[in-house]
Amino acid sequence: MKKKIVIVGLGLIGGSLAMALRGFEDYEVVGVVRRQATADYAMAHGVGDAVTLDAEEALRQADVTFLCIDPEDIIHYLAEHRDHFKPGSLVTDVCGIKGAVMAAARVLPETVDFIGSHPMAGTEFSGIEHAQADMFQGAHYILTPRPNSGEEHLALLERLAHHIGCRDVVRTTPERHDDIIAYTSQMMHIIAVSVCDDRELFECQGFEGSSFRGCTRVADLDVELWTQLFSLNRRALTAALDRLAENLDAYRAALRSGDDGLLREKLAHSAARKHQLDLGARPASPYYV
Amino acid sequence: MKKKIVIVGLGLIGGSLAMALRGFEDYEVVGVVRRQATADYAMAHGVGDAVTLDAEEALRQADVTFLCIDPEDIIHYLAEHRDHFKPGSLVTDVCGIKGAVMAAARVLPETVDFIGSHPMAGTEFSGIEHAQADMFQGAHYILTPRPNSGEEHLALLERLAHHIGCRDVVRTTPERHDDIIAYTSQMMHIIAVSVCDDRELFECQGFEGSSFRGCTRVADLDVELWTQLFSLNRRALTAALDRLAENLDAYRAALRSGDDGLLREKLAHSAARKHQLDLGARPASPYYV
Repeated sequence: MKKKIVIVGLGLIGGSLAMALRGFEDYEVVGVVRRQATADYAMAHGVGDAVTLDAEEALRQADVTFLCIDPEDIIHYLAEHRDHFKPGSLVTDVCGIKGAVMAAARVLPETVDFIGSHPMAGTEFSGIEHAQADMFQGAHYILTPRPNSGEEHLALLERLAHHIGCRDVVRTTPERHDDIIAYTSQMMHIIAVSVCDDRELFECQGFEGSSFRGCTRVADLDVELWTQLFSLNRRALTAALDRLAENLDAYRAALRSGDDGLLREKLAHSAARKHQLDLGARPASPYYV
Repeated sequence: MKKKIVIVGLGLIGGSLAMALRGFEDYEVVGVVRRQATADYAMAHGVGDAVTLDAEEALRQADVTFLCIDPEDIIHYLAEHRDHFKPGSLVTDVCGIKGAVMAAARVLPETVDFIGSHPMAGTEFSGIEHAQADMFQGAHYILTPRPNSGEEHLALLERLAHHIGCRDVVRTTPERHDDIIAYTSQMMHIIAVSVCDDRELFECQGFEGSSFRGCTRVADLDVELWTQLFSLNRRALTAALDRLAENLDAYRAALRSGDDGLLREKLAHSAARKHQLDLGARPASPYYV
């Protein structure tokens, strides 16, 4: 019998993962969904090799289980299904925060390995109908292993990440992940929604260019998902926003002062930082996180 | 003798304009530059039909003059060359602020028409070597006419805008332009540099996705140009940043409060605004402003 990768939740990320994982080594890719309509769509569109509504049966057979549902649902699912995972198997996730998920995974029996995953890809859309096989092209794949996570499981996830098109695999701790993600991803979403709260938003048509679009693109977000992600990373996100407010205030003060020399100096400093960052960068996924 | 469009300054925008305008109606496109090396590059790369270092001679023959130099330089140029423009001709610019330029244009004799232009396109690069003939594809072209600007000159600019690939021509006042641009463009640059001032910037490699890149792309900016643009629109930009600070503070307060219901509500409100905006949008230029 073929080995099985089970993907719980065939939304944007789970669906894309299921499409991208077809043909990976000798695994059969099985989706677990809650509605027949989703199952029908999955089979009609190559989203996985098979699909089922019977979660418990699928988990019992899974060698690898990806939990691709909302963060709060992941936390509940781990508790609800703790005794359904196959001993020796690997359970992982795709969630945009890691601390709360790793904490919830402590409910699992010792015989079940859990490694946190975060493939950094996505679009502003939701749902299986927006899933894409190339979603992860050029994306970073972040892993947060536990001290006793099996090297063979880590190696498996690394091979899997490369198979789906990720450009690199980054191992880190849940704390570091959440701290940095608060800045690189979550804060970008708070910026986008804050910009769109401006009373001038609807006056901008005819006056917007791609810097405006680039900044605000993610504002039409999945409200439930992002409420959970922000809430589960409240401390780090609040800290990142405090730093942003200070940095913005420094520019506001420079502007108000009328001192063009100061403004020029600040812009030169900031631009040089971005230039330096770019010197270290390589071409990356067009998909957001 | 052919009619002439003279483009003063063959940098990123002037160079792109010169490339894009070749073949427009029955005009010869003549670049005016300060260095022989730029002139040589222009002729080797199809940046205009001809190029000269003799500004005064070119202006005397120009039916249309585009001033594609930094804002402060435009202001000085108008005064320095006020008596060199051909009577009956049109002078315009490409500058990202309009109030200061329209005020400076009052120095021109009555026989010379001035209409403010702002083709909303650009990239984070500078210089003739980054000029592109398709720079203006899908861009908005904003016009700020004077009360006595000739309809035939306005019509000419509209035809020209369409020739270079702009998707629409928007007529507005200098004040409205500057107010809205403060929000849609200038504020985006202040956000980008503020985000890059964060101490975590260099820790982000391996953790950034395209929302981060989309927000920070414009941070490696032309320092002199943007210092001038911000300085010449200080009041409106400061007002836009004050509004942003309030909107960010509202999200920060919702996060600190721990009230997920409030956070969810705010996100739903902001996302709905963006969704509504997108419903009115059409595909646009990939180039930023």
